[in-house]
Amino acid sequence: MNFELTREFIDNLRMLIEANDERQVTELLQELHAADIAEIMDALSMEEAKYVYLMLDGEKASDVLIEIPEDDRKRFLNALPPEYIARQFIEFMDSDDAADILGELDEDVKKSVLNEIGDVEIAGDIADLLEYEEDTAGGIMAKELVAVNENWTVATCLKEIGRQSEDVDDIYYVYVVDDDNKLKGVLSLKKLILNSTNTQIKHIYNPDVKWVNTDTPQEEVAQMMEKYDLVAIPVVDDIGRLKGRITFDDVMDVMREEAERDYNMVSGITGDIEVGDKVWPLTRARVPWLMVGLFGGIMGSRVIGAHEEALSHLPATAFFIPLIAAMAGNIGVQSSSIVVQTLASGVRDFATPWQKLLKQLAVAFLTGGIFASLIFAYNFFFSDSMSLTYAVSLSLFIVMTLASVFGSLIPLALHRLKIDPAVATGPFITTMNDILGLTIYLFISQMFMNLM
Amino acid sequence: MNFELTREFIDNLRMLIEANDERQVTELLQELHAADIAEIMDALSMEEAKYVYLMLDGEKASDVLIEIPEDDRKRFLNALPPEYIARQFIEFMDSDDAADILGELDEDVKKSVLNEIGDVEIAGDIADLLEYEEDTAGGIMAKELVAVNENWTVATCLKEIGRQSEDVDDIYYVYVVDDDNKLKGVLSLKKLILNSTNTQIKHIYNPDVKWVNTDTPQEEVAQMMEKYDLVAIPVVDDIGRLKGRITFDDVMDVMREEAERDYNMVSGITGDIEVGDKVWPLTRARVPWLMVGLFGGIMGSRVIGAHEEALSHLPATAFFIPLIAAMAGNIGVQSSSIVVQTLASGVRDFATPWQKLLKQLAVAFLTGGIFASLIFAYNFFFSDSMSLTYAVSLSLFIVMTLASVFGSLIPLALHRLKIDPAVATGPFITTMNDILGLTIYLFISQMFMNLM
Repeated sequence: MNFELTREFIDNLRMLIEANDERQVTELLQELHAADIAEIMDALSMEEAKYVYLMLDGEKASDVLIEIPEDDRKRFLNALPPEYIARQFIEFMDSDDAADILGELDEDVKKSVLNEIGDVEIAGDIADLLEYEEDTAGGIMAKELVAVNENWTVATCLKEIGRQSEDVDDIYYVYVVDDDNKLKGVLSLKKLILNSTNTQIKHIYNPDVKWVNTDTPQEEVAQMMEKYDLVAIPVVDDIGRLKGRITFDDVMDVMREEAERDYNMVSGITGDIEVGDKVWPLTRARVPWLMVGLFGGIMGSRVIGAHEEALSHLPATAFFIPLIAAMAGNIGVQSSSIVVQTLASGVRDFATPWQKLLKQLAVAFLTGGIFASLIFAYNFFFSDSMSLTYAVSLSLFIVMTLASVFGSLIPLALHRLKIDPAVATGPFITTMNDILGLTIYLFISQMFMNLM
Repeated sequence: MNFELTREFIDNLRMLIEANDERQVTELLQELHAADIAEIMDALSMEEAKYVYLMLDGEKASDVLIEIPEDDRKRFLNALPPEYIARQFIEFMDSDDAADILGELDEDVKKSVLNEIGDVEIAGDIADLLEYEEDTAGGIMAKELVAVNENWTVATCLKEIGRQSEDVDDIYYVYVVDDDNKLKGVLSLKKLILNSTNTQIKHIYNPDVKWVNTDTPQEEVAQMMEKYDLVAIPVVDDIGRLKGRITFDDVMDVMREEAERDYNMVSGITGDIEVGDKVWPLTRARVPWLMVGLFGGIMGSRVIGAHEEALSHLPATAFFIPLIAAMAGNIGVQSSSIVVQTLASGVRDFATPWQKLLKQLAVAFLTGGIFASLIFAYNFFFSDSMSLTYAVSLSLFIVMTLASVFGSLIPLALHRLKIDPAVATGPFITTMNDILGLTIYLFISQMFMNLM
């Protein structure tokens, strides 16, 4: 029952499309999961993908629509009449998917689609969801959930679940609310099954429920669900009324998204990119951070240019330029990455700011000391110039210490200022430390040259 | 009901511990989730953490044991008698957690503990799990699940669930098996609730169930559950018998683990490290990759040293050494990161190897061309030497092209050879490209100097 996409499958499908064999194409796709169909469409040409998509029935078509890349979806939907979007796609979707997709459309198209939705309750739910910030609990939650009143019995409850569950694919938990729809607790389906039908809900529900507020950032939602192993978490408003729920699959998407964003940042890539993408998007994703590198390189050439005299006096000074730059860059990236990753995992450090700084300084001194000693030993045996030997070691020590401390403190400071600390990783920190390293190295070399 | 760990809470707890106020400490901890208690213990000193831990009752103590860092747990358990470990901790745990923790112990301790477990069935389950490779589906699955026979009715099923569910915290799905325990399909609790009690299971279960094999790599399990939004997936052996199940929380751990490993690799950190760790672990995590950088820097100094004559002839050649090295390093990291991330997400590219190479070449040419032109324009206006202007541009073009192509192909080749492609990111690729870049740049500069 597991499907694996192979090149043979794609080649075969292509042949059937070319032969315009609608019956066989439909048959081939019938049993497949929407995620598989989206993957297949991604491997096909635009024309072929369109052909495949038009073979799908309403519900499958809207499931697939959620899975395809945002750009393709936007282009496709903006070419369709609002009425068609509402009736053929949106009405089949869960409220969170519907809101995500409507949120991608142009403002006027979005409004028209909302007005074309037949069921006012559905339209209202989607309109409500569109109000929340995209990366908050409100922005990723769905309206579909099963809620029961604390005063009901198990029997009423089971009947209500039968009614409500038409819209809810997976129930996981039943949420217990009071007459004002305020969240009181949670009830597992297991408990519902194992209790007699005339038991009152208020006697069996668990009041120790974890919840998030509609404006809790999505990273915090993910950290919380991960920490407590929750399959779903209820979302409440400021006065505790139950507004929606977030399920584990939404949170997996958030985790993947966050991990990719941080990874892209540290490796200097802009935007969401894959090996399979076309030449221009692949190139475009690289240009911005390389531009930072180019700018840094030009700055570096100016710094060296300012010390041309020293260089012609002792050309061996140039030998260690790449070493200083590389070590400064590497240790800076390490430091900032440790901070970014700790912040992302939600683990907190209860040390005072001074303790933190002191520890980072200790790590920096120790690391700088190790490598300054190593390069001193190397130069002591292999270099002709004692002044260069001293200059390289001392510079490496200072540069590594500074780069390490900056690398730790800058992301911490950004986090304080509510700016994503991940921007201070990768090419940004490398470039900054390259220039800093060069400046210090050449200054110290000149000093030793004058001294000795 | 949400708990947030604050410095005030820690300070207050510390005071109570100091005053040896057992009653209040117990009261403070009573309502807390095991994950919170582990977090609290992490913020305390070793002695204080021990004090807190000894206040916990058997079941809570074993829940907390699962949450604390591996090193602490190992040190703690290896000091206890096997009988105590078996009776106080292991017997309270799910089979997957028990197997993970036993797997960390020394071989002889492990065997003694297994033999001390009172219930032979539990001991057998754990021993079975210990047979599987750690990073496969078998290694992360749990034995606890609810399975029903296809020939039963809903009523028998509900009774059986009541019996089996004592051991299973969250049911999610009921798995349907035949008389040989071979997996036939899946049944949601919702369907069970909504059907009449005399319906036969074989008429209502869903045969379209996704499953994994015991030796499926854990990354693939994660990709699959994420793709199909599965809250749990059954694990079968080679002839299709149901062996266990993996739940979403195990997979979230795998995702976090993989993301951290890849992130550490690209930023040059060894091991699992956090800002809150002590000075020596923080330093040790940095040394290995900095060593690679130091070695690369020394190699670089040798390459430049070999061209000392050219440098003294035109010292301005040295100005652009950092630029060439930085651009080569950055574009190499970008290329390898895109490949590593695509591989990690499980998205496949169905292009032939030649198409892939051709595309990477096109991206490399385009990117190299853009930056070679930019630096040409800069040097044309600001540099005195035409030969240097040509040499820098041409070198940058060649170096960026090569670095980009290598950066893409090396991780792909490693993946083919079943080696983790992430080792070819970060300092490794940067260092290699630094040296390559320097060699090419100095060779070309010399060539132009001789020509012009």
